[in-house]
Amino acid sequence: MASNGVDEIKLVEGPAGYVLEDVPHLSDYILDLPTYPNPLQSNAAYSVVRQYFVDEDDTVQEKIVVHKDSPRGTHFRRAGPRQKVYFKPSDVRACIVTCGGLCPGLNTVIREIVCGLHFMYGVTEVIGVDCGFRGFYSKNTVALTPKTVSDIHKRGGTILGTSRGGHDTSKIVDNIQDREINQVYIIGGDGTQKGASAIYKEIRRRGLNVAVAGIPKTIDNDIPVIDKSFGFDTAVEEAQRAINAAHVEATSVENGIGLVKLMGRYSGFIAMYATLASRDVDCCLIPESPFYLEGKGGLYEFIAKRLRENGHMVIVIAEGAGQDLVAESIDQQDASGNKLLKDVGLWMSLKIKEHFAKQSVMDITLKYIDPTYMIRAIPANASDNVYSTLLAQSAVHGAMAGYTGFVSGLVNGRHTYIPFNRITERQNKVVITDRMWARMLSSTNQPSFMNPS
Amino acid sequence: MASNGVDEIKLVEGPAGYVLEDVPHLSDYILDLPTYPNPLQSNAAYSVVRQYFVDEDDTVQEKIVVHKDSPRGTHFRRAGPRQKVYFKPSDVRACIVTCGGLCPGLNTVIREIVCGLHFMYGVTEVIGVDCGFRGFYSKNTVALTPKTVSDIHKRGGTILGTSRGGHDTSKIVDNIQDREINQVYIIGGDGTQKGASAIYKEIRRRGLNVAVAGIPKTIDNDIPVIDKSFGFDTAVEEAQRAINAAHVEATSVENGIGLVKLMGRYSGFIAMYATLASRDVDCCLIPESPFYLEGKGGLYEFIAKRLRENGHMVIVIAEGAGQDLVAESIDQQDASGNKLLKDVGLWMSLKIKEHFAKQSVMDITLKYIDPTYMIRAIPANASDNVYSTLLAQSAVHGAMAGYTGFVSGLVNGRHTYIPFNRITERQNKVVITDRMWARMLSSTNQPSFMNPS
Amino acid sequence: MASNGVDEIKLVEGPAGYVLEDVPHLSDYILDLPTYPNPLQSNAAYSVVRQYFVDEDDTVQEKIVVHKDSPRGTHFRRAGPRQKVYFKPSDVRACIVTCGGLCPGLNTVIREIVCGLHFMYGVTEVIGVDCGFRGFYSKNTVALTPKTVSDIHKRGGTILGTSRGGHDTSKIVDNIQDREINQVYIIGGDGTQKGASAIYKEIRRRGLNVAVAGIPKTIDNDIPVIDKSFGFDTAVEEAQRAINAAHVEATSVENGIGLVKLMGRYSGFIAMYATLASRDVDCCLIPESPFYLEGKGGLYEFIAKRLRENGHMVIVIAEGAGQDLVAESIDQQDASGNKLLKDVGLWMSLKIKEHFAKQSVMDITLKYIDPTYMIRAIPANASDNVYSTLLAQSAVHGAMAGYTGFVSGLVNGRHTYIPFNRITERQNKVVITDRMWARMLSSTNQPSFMNPS
Amino acid sequence: MASNGVDEIKLVEGPAGYVLEDVPHLSDYILDLPTYPNPLQSNAAYSVVRQYFVDEDDTVQEKIVVHKDSPRGTHFRRAGPRQKVYFKPSDVRACIVTCGGLCPGLNTVIREIVCGLHFMYGVTEVIGVDCGFRGFYSKNTVALTPKTVSDIHKRGGTILGTSRGGHDTSKIVDNIQDREINQVYIIGGDGTQKGASAIYKEIRRRGLNVAVAGIPKTIDNDIPVIDKSFGFDTAVEEAQRAINAAHVEATSVENGIGLVKLMGRYSGFIAMYATLASRDVDCCLIPESPFYLEGKGGLYEFIAKRLRENGHMVIVIAEGAGQDLVAESIDQQDASGNKLLKDVGLWMSLKIKEHFAKQSVMDITLKYIDPTYMIRAIPANASDNVYSTLLAQSAVHGAMAGYTGFVSGLVNGRHTYIPFNRITERQNKVVITDRMWARMLSSTNQPSFMNPS
Repeated sequence: MASNGVDEIKLVEGPAGYVLEDVPHLSDYILDLPTYPNPLQSNAAYSVVRQYFVDEDDTVQEKIVVHKDSPRGTHFRRAGPRQKVYFKPSDVRACIVTCGGLCPGLNTVIREIVCGLHFMYGVTEVIGVDCGFRGFYSKNTVALTPKTVSDIHKRGGTILGTSRGGHDTSKIVDNIQDREINQVYIIGGDGTQKGASAIYKEIRRRGLNVAVAGIPKTIDNDIPVIDKSFGFDTAVEEAQRAINAAHVEATSVENGIGLVKLMGRYSGFIAMYATLASRDVDCCLIPESPFYLEGKGGLYEFIAKRLRENGHMVIVIAEGAGQDLVAESIDQQDASGNKLLKDVGLWMSLKIKEHFAKQSVMDITLKYIDPTYMIRAIPANASDNVYSTLLAQSAVHGAMAGYTGFVSGLVNGRHTYIPFNRITERQNKVVITDRMWARMLSSTNQPSFMNPS
Repeated sequence: MASNGVDEIKLVEGPAGYVLEDVPHLSDYILDLPTYPNPLQSNAAYSVVRQYFVDEDDTVQEKIVVHKDSPRGTHFRRAGPRQKVYFKPSDVRACIVTCGGLCPGLNTVIREIVCGLHFMYGVTEVIGVDCGFRGFYSKNTVALTPKTVSDIHKRGGTILGTSRGGHDTSKIVDNIQDREINQVYIIGGDGTQKGASAIYKEIRRRGLNVAVAGIPKTIDNDIPVIDKSFGFDTAVEEAQRAINAAHVEATSVENGIGLVKLMGRYSGFIAMYATLASRDVDCCLIPESPFYLEGKGGLYEFIAKRLRENGHMVIVIAEGAGQDLVAESIDQQDASGNKLLKDVGLWMSLKIKEHFAKQSVMDITLKYIDPTYMIRAIPANASDNVYSTLLAQSAVHGAMAGYTGFVSGLVNGRHTYIPFNRITERQNKVVITDRMWARMLSSTNQPSFMNPS
Repeated sequence: MASNGVDEIKLVEGPAGYVLEDVPHLSDYILDLPTYPNPLQSNAAYSVVRQYFVDEDDTVQEKIVVHKDSPRGTHFRRAGPRQKVYFKPSDVRACIVTCGGLCPGLNTVIREIVCGLHFMYGVTEVIGVDCGFRGFYSKNTVALTPKTVSDIHKRGGTILGTSRGGHDTSKIVDNIQDREINQVYIIGGDGTQKGASAIYKEIRRRGLNVAVAGIPKTIDNDIPVIDKSFGFDTAVEEAQRAINAAHVEATSVENGIGLVKLMGRYSGFIAMYATLASRDVDCCLIPESPFYLEGKGGLYEFIAKRLRENGHMVIVIAEGAGQDLVAESIDQQDASGNKLLKDVGLWMSLKIKEHFAKQSVMDITLKYIDPTYMIRAIPANASDNVYSTLLAQSAVHGAMAGYTGFVSGLVNGRHTYIPFNRITERQNKVVITDRMWARMLSSTNQPSFMNPS
Repeated sequence: MASNGVDEIKLVEGPAGYVLEDVPHLSDYILDLPTYPNPLQSNAAYSVVRQYFVDEDDTVQEKIVVHKDSPRGTHFRRAGPRQKVYFKPSDVRACIVTCGGLCPGLNTVIREIVCGLHFMYGVTEVIGVDCGFRGFYSKNTVALTPKTVSDIHKRGGTILGTSRGGHDTSKIVDNIQDREINQVYIIGGDGTQKGASAIYKEIRRRGLNVAVAGIPKTIDNDIPVIDKSFGFDTAVEEAQRAINAAHVEATSVENGIGLVKLMGRYSGFIAMYATLASRDVDCCLIPESPFYLEGKGGLYEFIAKRLRENGHMVIVIAEGAGQDLVAESIDQQDASGNKLLKDVGLWMSLKIKEHFAKQSVMDITLKYIDPTYMIRAIPANASDNVYSTLLAQSAVHGAMAGYTGFVSGLVNGRHTYIPFNRITERQNKVVITDRMWARMLSSTNQPSFMNPS
């Protein structure tokens, strides 16, 4: 048993600048682990499949746009079933936990971990942890079988329940030991994956034969490295309803403004993609791109201009946009009404109304729409259902093959295993000096807000 | 010319307690009006139709549940085409105006007034008044043709634009005279129809040969006499999305509460029907049924009870519910945040959160959804499309036949002409001593809030 | 015990031509039945309701368009709870059966019979008959509780299963006796209600204390007397998708024809309402209005004309339209391909293609869409959910009050009990000499096909 | 002017096995073409963007799963704007043509070519070719402006009209010359892109300064090299409706079979992904995986088995599956009904019904659903809208930069320019020896049909 190396990063180098950022394996710290032939070898469904097992040497290149003489750069281990597994199916006792906010596809991931373990590997003991991390030590678990999860992918939310915080690593690992769990599947955002990483490290420190696999979840798409997070497509799709409604409201009155708040505390991906998909938006405000209200080049001026030109306007704002403005503007007295103003959508609707009322230049009619919970709570669409299914299968293959301390993620269209640190050490953000944001700007023709008064 | 009789109600009595509450007719105050054969007589579409023209004596009974010996009671004039019309098609110059809030079906009504006048009567001059009543005197009009309105029923909102207020009867009627308009179609709620009534009276006072027809619009379904208002079905349907989302949010956390605000300033029909249709609602609060928060039998107690029993709860609240509580609770200082609290949904979400935070008995998670503008702005569903079409056709038949000072409305499933006063003198409300409310109560099992502490 | 009177119709006459067509009652043929106070009297939900119980004398007028001196005509007994009931709740053993084709709302009706009996009356024994009438004697039953039916209204189809035919009255009634069932709820179309009527008569003949209640089901809306059948609104709504698709296909090619077959074996209500709601249809063909293909005034001529004018065309055909043409056209050899041609949609798409290929005047592109099963299988929309709920509650109130041999139905917007014979002796059809059909014709501008060559 | 090299493939080699399969450029055969600075340099939207222009050396790697010592393999030129362009915006005269079947997103592509040329490059002359290739010489063109295409992405189909075939290269290029068109955008499937390739070659042969850009379109996703084709996600999503309906129909009767035919003449991607997304499918049949009906291991046996186990079954069949069986089974007489049997869905529904009728072992009820045209005709979902937009922008950037004879396509998540030959020389197919098909098999548990009797 070797508990050192917990914080090390596994790097493998190769010719022409090739680097593999590998994920930990149970055999890294437990010696002489037995292995077993993969039960898929005798699975009827795979009888015709020749290239079924992933070659041990398969890796996925991170950098995809290259020059003739570029170094080959970082690679990740390819996800998928291996010839041999490190768990005897009848010995496996897996648990699943969901943490953080709702996201379309959660139930699909749960369903597929259960069904994948069951049908591909013959694992029958899978338990669900109730209501997030704290459920490990404060709640009863529920048994999960293919039958109980059969239809859950058609429902929004998570059948396991979720919560924020509640992360006491030591009590969680105690509980994992006490319940003799040996595979832990953790679905959640970057905070949750930090927790998962801590659980993995504690397990390693204790030398336990327990695989820890994360499935990254963030409706905001703010997890780095991976192509996109599950549920994102569904969210952008559903956001169209709100934008359409805002557009109808705005165009049905004189000087109508439709204001839609979309998810995105630290990154504006949903707002940006929803704007690009809709084409009815006049202004898209995201956390990554600061803006200001008053004076030349400010938002008020742009609103007035657009209303004079078109008679109406649709604004999309990510929930994390303009937080600096909100903070300096809110009355610091603890009036209960002011709490509401921490919501940038309510705050901005009030500010715009006040501005134009004060100005008495222009009568405006503003309608504010916050579709957040209507978006989060819907079931995954077909594309996210397939995607969530494959993420879950990858996680199952990885844990069965003895990998641990990894998340399963799509990189350049291929499923991979990524070490925790790569997805928790920074957040993915819209790069406003990049082309995608320029495309967005050219579709709305909004100012760049680069010249505050 | 006889300008007296403006405020009289036309009543006709008959055997066994029969009463007809008739609508005014241009010939009531203009003598010797010429009539013309109805152009429908030579319309190919009606060549096979034998019972096409409405019998002059056809009336529709208001009271439909009767006893063996009941008096026959009130009747309304049946809507539909008449053998002779009081306008020569080539002389007609019609205008359409939409007022008040958005409602699914507005564009369908506009479309069908234009198409009905055109295809059934050969009327080619129809103009749209821009942005509500005030558009009569402050805006340019737009020409409306079957081509320009061809696809508008598939869009939400109103292509004419709308506004609230702006009602200067005298300037409106001046404008009607100046533009030589002789048919005025007014689509709007009870405030608007009061305005329409004033316009009709002024027109009659001036002795003008101008027919005024109202099409009652209220997404809240709070117009009396008529079976239901157009757009109501669509609104109840769309409200299901919000309730489903609230249910998913509530069931995905411990002690989750989903709170949905629905339309209904003075009446709770949308909330009540949406609750009955959904079956996921634990408590439905409407303006007609007072409630209280604190103490025995109050809302907080019920919430705590339901959470203990089921672990989650869905509350639907009509926007006009609990206004007494809101008024007494809001801090009267003019803090800008407090303005937001006039919204009963925001107010209640804050109150419930504060209560349970203070109590520290139970950690709750409340998600508040306000789908109002997403509901109002969608296009009419098929049922409302057909209904709105027939309402518009009835209005056109009525105006062509010389009736004026009426709204077109469905009574016991039959299209009728109803005098303005009958729909403006009171509002339709949920009768909480009636069976429909009892059905709702028995579906939610909520307390009756009859015993304030 | 009096078994005579089985075939009699209960008529009550009153002043001014009043007639009540009443429904049978258990006390008509069983003497000295005990009665019990209605448990709703102590139901909390009804504590505020004053007019809760239906007055024994309440009846609903069938004829709603009247003249000053019209006779009052036919009335039906008003549905709803009575002061006293004829079953002790703990003695009730109810069963539910669904027969015939799928229809949106079936599960809502099942759900509400179970929940209504349970929550309003405290009845706990409700069983479901599997797969239609024949399930009475060939299948196991399933126990139905509020918990097992809790979410079924969100699913299409029928959880009980259904079948056609299989009606052996004597074996069914034997089974009802053997299982000691005393309330039978039968959901199905006119054939099914004829079967229900036979079951009622046999039960009466045997003098059994068993109430038989029908809930009429027909997606085609072809049941007479009632305002409309449940599921109809949902079907018309869903049909819009197919018409929209046909319209897109037709407008995206030169001389494009979109052909949509809709339900309606004997009546064209869905086709007519879907056409009216859509406004994209150029020709609507229904069973009630014969048409012909060749020659002057025929369909081919109209298609050619419309294509020359607009470049595209959308045709809606009810499944029962043109059956005479199909019959005479199909090759009588038993080639298996010909079986398919009994489907009027396939037949017509082939005929139109052959005609224009032969003509070589015009290259057409025809796309045929048959959305039948996609329409039938969806869950009820909100409006149909409320409607189905109330129909089921009415049936429950009626059976508990001792009425039998009735269906629950909406007449002029009021819930009533209607004797079986009134809804089985004829079918509701589109009256092509009436205004609704004329409205449809004027919306499509199609020929009347009155002048066959 | 150099007309030779028309058929050559441009290859560039580099270290470690690097190969670039480049696309042609106008300067390959026209000497001394003038260049102009890219107007985007002065575009406000790009003022903040630093990495806006694509580096000339940027290429995208085709092989993404590699080993430590793999050769680097094929690359494609990265799409995007270049520092200098080969057309003066005021000189550009572009045309757009759409060919083949409908696909969600066609209108989005058209819209963005027009808007991209206009707003990014200041190009104002864009014309639409009516109804496919043959429209070049047989139809009038339509002028396309940002205003006329503003809302078209919300509609299904193609506003330009489409057709199959009609490809007379020489007449098309004559017309391009006569109309002085210098950018040709061709949207269509592999047949169409073969046509586009021929047009490009003829243009090159004539030495014309005309750029030819293809945007590959195939709802079946059967174009090689690219990640997926636009509209595919939308199609898989919409297919869920049909599968859901089939599932409801199948589960609502005894021994119910729901049969759904989906698009896919030569490849089963839609069927496979729709099956994976739904989880309600028992058997998925595609062209790439042969099957047989009779005997041991055949489809009939599997149906009987699944019905005995579950009582119902859902089958999804791609339109091109089992064509060998259809061909040998159809009666060769020219009975018109037999034409219908070329449709594998109708054929199979008939075969299954006949088999079980003959067997008289089991009464089955089969419902057949063909949602093809309802899927093809819907508008693109949000994800496909964004994707189609970027494809169109890439094509515009490429043509402006002087590239020709290319299609714009997504490779490993990056937009690239691909030479025509790479996408027309073979079709993309489901590889049934690969993992994706194995995942599908394991989700349905269907037999592999490897052992024909």
